[in-house]
Amino acid sequence: MRKKVIVMLAEGFEELEAVTVIDILRRAGIKVIAAGLTSKRIKGSRDTVITADKILGQSDLKTDYDACVLPGGMPGAEHLANSDIVKELIKKMHKQKRIIAAICASPALVLSQMGILDNRSATCYPGMEGIFPKSASYSEDPVVIDGNIITSKGPATAIYFALLIVQALIGKKIAEQVRKSVLA
Amino acid sequence: MRKKVIVMLAEGFEELEAVTVIDILRRAGIKVIAAGLTSKRIKGSRDTVITADKILGQSDLKTDYDACVLPGGMPGAEHLANSDIVKELIKKMHKQKRIIAAICASPALVLSQMGILDNRSATCYPGMEGIFPKSASYSEDPVVIDGNIITSKGPATAIYFALLIVQALIGKKIAEQVRKSVLA
Repeated sequence: MRKKVIVMLAEGFEELEAVTVIDILRRAGIKVIAAGLTSKRIKGSRDTVITADKILGQSDLKTDYDACVLPGGMPGAEHLANSDIVKELIKKMHKQKRIIAAICASPALVLSQMGILDNRSATCYPGMEGIFPKSASYSEDPVVIDGNIITSKGPATAIYFALLIVQALIGKKIAEQVRKSVLA
Repeated sequence: MRKKVIVMLAEGFEELEAVTVIDILRRAGIKVIAAGLTSKRIKGSRDTVITADKILGQSDLKTDYDACVLPGGMPGAEHLANSDIVKELIKKMHKQKRIIAAICASPALVLSQMGILDNRSATCYPGMEGIFPKSASYSEDPVVIDGNIITSKGPATAIYFALLIVQALIGKKIAEQVRKSVLA
């Protein structure tokens, strides 16, 4: 079965991070659904407007995604953190041990408050780790995987974040092919 | 005067490269105009749809841009290479010694055929340098600047390409600030 990943986009998302993940995952043959929180037309933190594939809705709670991705960016990450449906989807997928991947401001702002980083090794945009729970162990690595949780630092690490999501979903061989094709 | 840069987007452009450049230049305070070749709504090579700021038109030939940027991606780069208005704009800006920046397939497919790489040091997506003119010297560096021409290899080098454009336009200090903020 082809793997299916939802990328959640809220107004003010970091567009470089989001577009990098969508691009790399699609290069790997993964089905990517970019879902806008309030609208299909979503503006990034540096004003690039992207048309998402759909608006995030109740049907997404019934869909078996293999991974969900939370880009960073402000206030994008705050909007994700304040969204009931985003939290419900993450909670459900976490229970099923599906991959939850967050980068930049999102590990700290979204995953921390949900208790998802408790007793985990994780990373985020440097300086935001103060929000991590005491039981989490902050890593200086650009990308960290601990069980089903993948976290990463920010814009310049987005390609490696995306490649690790590919590897976790469909293995090292294709991740390596994509890595070479994008010259990373 | 605030610097003004046009990023040209044709159907099938490499969205990771384009969005990275737009994002980084805007972080540096540069005014970026994303111009679609045939429509404001442009689909990238991995299906991300971006709404450009405008459609490329005759008025752009009368505007004094400080730099133009050509993302790669297929068939995006081919569309740029076949567009009269793109070629006219590049020719005019090259005469004025404004910065012409191209990445991935675009140095080989667009700039080569226009004679702009003649007697220049440049780079492109590896394997496409066969299209370079004999007088050009192909570099293995991720980003190359030779006079007003900036070229780069592909997706994973897009951040460094963008940072060099920032540096060429407004100096090392701000480029360095932006580099740190994106963790590159």
